[in-house]
Amino acid sequence: MTEPTPRQDLLTVHVPLDAGRAYDILIGRGLIDTAGAAVAALGGRRAAIVTDATVGALYAARLRTSLERAGLQAGVVTVAPGEASKSYAGFAEVCDGLLALKVERGDLVVALGGGVVGDLAGFAAATLRRGVRFVQVPTSLLAQVDSSVGGKTGINAPLGKNLIGAFHQPRLVLADTAALDTLSEREMRAGYAEVAKYGLIADPGFFDWCEANWRGIFSGGPEREQAVASCCRAKAAVVTRDEREDGERALLNLGHTFGHALERLTGYDSARLVHGEGVAIGMALAFRFSARLGLCGGQDAGRVANHLALAGLPTRLQAVPGGCGTVESILDAMTQDKKVRDGALTFILARGIGQSFIAPGIDRAAVAAFLEDELASHRDL
Amino acid sequence: MTEPTPRQDLLTVHVPLDAGRAYDILIGRGLIDTAGAAVAALGGRRAAIVTDATVGALYAARLRTSLERAGLQAGVVTVAPGEASKSYAGFAEVCDGLLALKVERGDLVVALGGGVVGDLAGFAAATLRRGVRFVQVPTSLLAQVDSSVGGKTGINAPLGKNLIGAFHQPRLVLADTAALDTLSEREMRAGYAEVAKYGLIADPGFFDWCEANWRGIFSGGPEREQAVASCCRAKAAVVTRDEREDGERALLNLGHTFGHALERLTGYDSARLVHGEGVAIGMALAFRFSARLGLCGGQDAGRVANHLALAGLPTRLQAVPGGCGTVESILDAMTQDKKVRDGALTFILARGIGQSFIAPGIDRAAVAAFLEDELASHRDL
Repeated sequence: MTEPTPRQDLLTVHVPLDAGRAYDILIGRGLIDTAGAAVAALGGRRAAIVTDATVGALYAARLRTSLERAGLQAGVVTVAPGEASKSYAGFAEVCDGLLALKVERGDLVVALGGGVVGDLAGFAAATLRRGVRFVQVPTSLLAQVDSSVGGKTGINAPLGKNLIGAFHQPRLVLADTAALDTLSEREMRAGYAEVAKYGLIADPGFFDWCEANWRGIFSGGPEREQAVASCCRAKAAVVTRDEREDGERALLNLGHTFGHALERLTGYDSARLVHGEGVAIGMALAFRFSARLGLCGGQDAGRVANHLALAGLPTRLQAVPGGCGTVESILDAMTQDKKVRDGALTFILARGIGQSFIAPGIDRAAVAAFLEDELASHRDL
Repeated sequence: MTEPTPRQDLLTVHVPLDAGRAYDILIGRGLIDTAGAAVAALGGRRAAIVTDATVGALYAARLRTSLERAGLQAGVVTVAPGEASKSYAGFAEVCDGLLALKVERGDLVVALGGGVVGDLAGFAAATLRRGVRFVQVPTSLLAQVDSSVGGKTGINAPLGKNLIGAFHQPRLVLADTAALDTLSEREMRAGYAEVAKYGLIADPGFFDWCEANWRGIFSGGPEREQAVASCCRAKAAVVTRDEREDGERALLNLGHTFGHALERLTGYDSARLVHGEGVAIGMALAFRFSARLGLCGGQDAGRVANHLALAGLPTRLQAVPGGCGTVESILDAMTQDKKVRDGALTFILARGIGQSFIAPGIDRAAVAAFLEDELASHRDL
């Protein structure tokens, strides 16, 4: 019944939000088995784990044991794996499951899984009894470096991704880097797209480091914890300055305007395209579009695409299995994205690696011409 | 195309919330037809009206015309009337309807209707694209004095009422008191329960005034605007001091712990019991329970029940058509209510008229004995 003493080997990123909402991100191997003490320190009687069947089979019992050893009443709500659970029906399922576990206002919801589970459980926590606290235990690389940090929660609507949601900050994030050992190569790659993104947005030195060290992230060397910490630190800084995306937080959407459109056009079917792959193609497109507009050099665009391809990521519209439709269908899918304001298209473009900026009011015809050429292109990179 | 000049005959209640969220409640006859100018002054391109079929048939076209005259693009999302729309399915329907109208982040959602529409549209506005602004145009007495003020939005879950939701303050409330002319007597009475509530909570002078002037509220005299303004002022003061119900805001739940249980036990079937009727019974019970516990005099409890009965409201468990089950079923229904914290029962009790207080940790056995006697009682008031 004794819990291990606090661990000295963890990396910690502090997110200094105001109004008592500051929280820590702990990063290290084996955190799932020592989560109980950290979660119990937040107070509350119950901790309800929300997970999916795949992740739950691997880790839910271990997490639950740790929570119970720390004196918490624990329960588990399990949804089907995959993006389809991030729906109105999945939301109802999680809320009703948490209510059946008698989660009260002072209790905690613990999201155990990848981005889908984090977004879904976070939105349920944001709205259950008008808001209960939640803890993120991200188990994918994507979730550890991106979706578990920053407080964006939500579900998809038939008309588009993430169109329904809330800003709801976690009270604690526990990124167990050992959990990434069970990810498929494809999932690791997809998460890696978001790692590289932080270099491309505003940190050319980190992109250099990624080019030199990406293999260590995949193989589970100490580079993995370093990369997760670097990404969380970068995201935390942006989120602290612009929590509700009135300004610079939009930079985190580099590659996402194109990427979300591609996900939509492939019906959110992960067999065809997962989020990180859409982002990889989107980032390569954003840099090539920037080069075409004369904003950055073609060499930078080439370097971006080369590195993503080396890590096994797609960088071309043609790489989408089954195709992604016509220029018009891509444009239509983009204008449904919530980064559309008063009908104008907003992109994240770049003046070079690590020099991204928000470009509102981009001419639809210029995008159309660019996409036309991309679709016509048969060059391999 | 010219909009009437700002009206001098309106009552205004200012809700001084911080962080740029202060808003006004305007009260007067015919506000639906002059809403456009006030809504357009908030900025935004589109105003999407959410209403139900009953209210929409009466007022949606008039409101839409006023909005369009003021230069806004207006659209309408219509749901079925009744509590059943305040559900996961109703939430999805409204969100998808708003997305189909291409409501963007800078646009407005306008809730036109009673408490159900306000709660549902408010929750959709709170979560659509992670939050868009909304305006309340309450058309029932209940909504004008209670649910449209204070920022509580939400839907019901199968396990209980209002269990899913968000705090999301309106940017403006337009209480058109002429809209109450089309309410049924029963709806007026139900709303009046919440009017009387403000006197019972903390304002014995207002309860005296209600005893003397309630008929003018029903008949549409100037007492109606005065009552709505008094209630909004009282609620605004409480909400400003305790927006998220960490403390005194819970006083507004006088009569609601019993009332919500009765609504739940009658399956939210408005043919049997509407919210205000449940609250009326609940307030009478809260005062009789207070008297039984020796907290207030039996005379006060009698005066409360007499006044509610005079206004045509039920004050006894036996008044619920079809009955409300056993003591155990009522207790079980109460413990599902979200005002339960760590399993203890919290009631709003009173030391007299206008002297309500939050009473946490009430013994379940004492409630059971009280309800037993209430159910056994056949006395008429």
